[in-house]
Amino acid sequence: MYTRQGLSPNVSFPRVVGIECIGTVAGYHSSTTSPPVPIGQRVATCMGGLGRSLSGSYAEYTCVAQENIRRIPDTQNLKVAELASFPEMFQTTWGSLTSGLDVQKGESVLVRGATSSIGLCALQLLKKLGASRIGATTRNPSRIDMLHGAGADEVFIDNGSIADEVASSAGGVFDKVLELVGASVVRDSLKCVRPQGTVCISGMQGGEWLLNDFDVFAFRNRSRLTGYSGGPEDFLALPFEELVKDADEGKIKIPVREFKLEDIQQVHEILEAGGGGAKMVVVVAEE
Amino acid sequence: MYTRQGLSPNVSFPRVVGIECIGTVAGYHSSTTSPPVPIGQRVATCMGGLGRSLSGSYAEYTCVAQENIRRIPDTQNLKVAELASFPEMFQTTWGSLTSGLDVQKGESVLVRGATSSIGLCALQLLKKLGASRIGATTRNPSRIDMLHGAGADEVFIDNGSIADEVASSAGGVFDKVLELVGASVVRDSLKCVRPQGTVCISGMQGGEWLLNDFDVFAFRNRSRLTGYSGGPEDFLALPFEELVKDADEGKIKIPVREFKLEDIQQVHEILEAGGGGAKMVVVVAEE
Repeated sequence: MYTRQGLSPNVSFPRVVGIECIGTVAGYHSSTTSPPVPIGQRVATCMGGLGRSLSGSYAEYTCVAQENIRRIPDTQNLKVAELASFPEMFQTTWGSLTSGLDVQKGESVLVRGATSSIGLCALQLLKKLGASRIGATTRNPSRIDMLHGAGADEVFIDNGSIADEVASSAGGVFDKVLELVGASVVRDSLKCVRPQGTVCISGMQGGEWLLNDFDVFAFRNRSRLTGYSGGPEDFLALPFEELVKDADEGKIKIPVREFKLEDIQQVHEILEAGGGGAKMVVVVAEE
Repeated sequence: MYTRQGLSPNVSFPRVVGIECIGTVAGYHSSTTSPPVPIGQRVATCMGGLGRSLSGSYAEYTCVAQENIRRIPDTQNLKVAELASFPEMFQTTWGSLTSGLDVQKGESVLVRGATSSIGLCALQLLKKLGASRIGATTRNPSRIDMLHGAGADEVFIDNGSIADEVASSAGGVFDKVLELVGASVVRDSLKCVRPQGTVCISGMQGGEWLLNDFDVFAFRNRSRLTGYSGGPEDFLALPFEELVKDADEGKIKIPVREFKLEDIQQVHEILEAGGGGAKMVVVVAEE
């Protein structure tokens, strides 16, 4: 089993890793009769096994299924590195909030592990979706301002056990929790929602992929657990062009740190040490 | 951990076991200023630690918190053993369907492990709650007629992996699943519901109390997991008198097998060998 941090499921080696990228279409397979976008079009891609069962994006050229590309609209203000931060981030965040948690206008939602790029994106998308109360957690008190800046109404300092503090806060428990820390704190997150409220696990910052010794008493307060792991259909269902335009207009801002391909080892060391606060982007070639 | 079948959580020994009973009120503690029912009233009780942290009901007399008794209405047709089968069964089944699964009129619900007394009760309460389509599973083809008789529209023979058969059935997957087999098949049950459909674990007939090696890919189809383990408040919230009247009028029928206290070892042997098909009741003293 893939319980160790860094060993992602469904990856067979040797493999060129990298599960997402943006780039321009250089060509199609000779059997392609109706190309979905013209050669030279700027596109984003992820899913469909990229970097897992197929060779991935840590490369100048990569080959993906045409079903897994989305056209990138023209933008005024975004840098290449910013555009490159979007595919997985938007797909995972949007899918978790809409398909996983089914967030409705007026609901209260807590984002646990909110300083990751997915977390920061979630806070901003919750505003777009009309959440009435947006909570965020971080282990690091120095990041409280960053979280308020991204849209959090309340910030809880996360020592692994925040349910009592959430329950006794002015707003009480939340309708829903987006769980980005993962298995290590999920029992506590289940106590942070109202009866029949939902917790969606979409991230594993805590390093634990699997629930173990998990019993039904975790649901004592009538909570519900789900998880989000997007498929290719989710990337296609994403309002990608709309979200890119929101970002171009400054309505969604995700900090990006830009690296060169030769920095890749350093990037992974930063991520494995906890990362957070910015999406790491490797620019292989400026278009 | 309490992973072995038969080792129920939160029990400290030595203990008089037995987590539910009916009987008549013989007396109150001297500090009781306003008795909830008169001495001699027939009542039902369960919850509040009975048979776990308090001595239980395998006895002529037992002592329970007055908050955990419910008045038994006058009935015309029910035997003592039938009345005695109700407290936990009604509480668990009603709580699982309403609080756990939040079953709404017109929804489709599959009861997995339906030949237990909870399962048979669930099929009949689903009819009362207005479910549009009631599915049931059993390992034993000889019990198909029993399940149809209890209200099942469809019966699936359960070999541990029924999701494909359910998905390809005329009605397709269900809105909700009441999971009475437990942890051993819950991944399969999660595939038996529609997107954002819920599976509620309320029983552990399969002998596995705990989920292990459980990852978010189990939720790939956007299912949700919850569990029901009632508390004292659930027994008080139960429409107990109404359900007893339904049973007295023959609208709810649960087969009962009656035993004497000296048969208790045999009763447990039957249960540990799989039981099913009837609620086992020990009559200590006829009132």
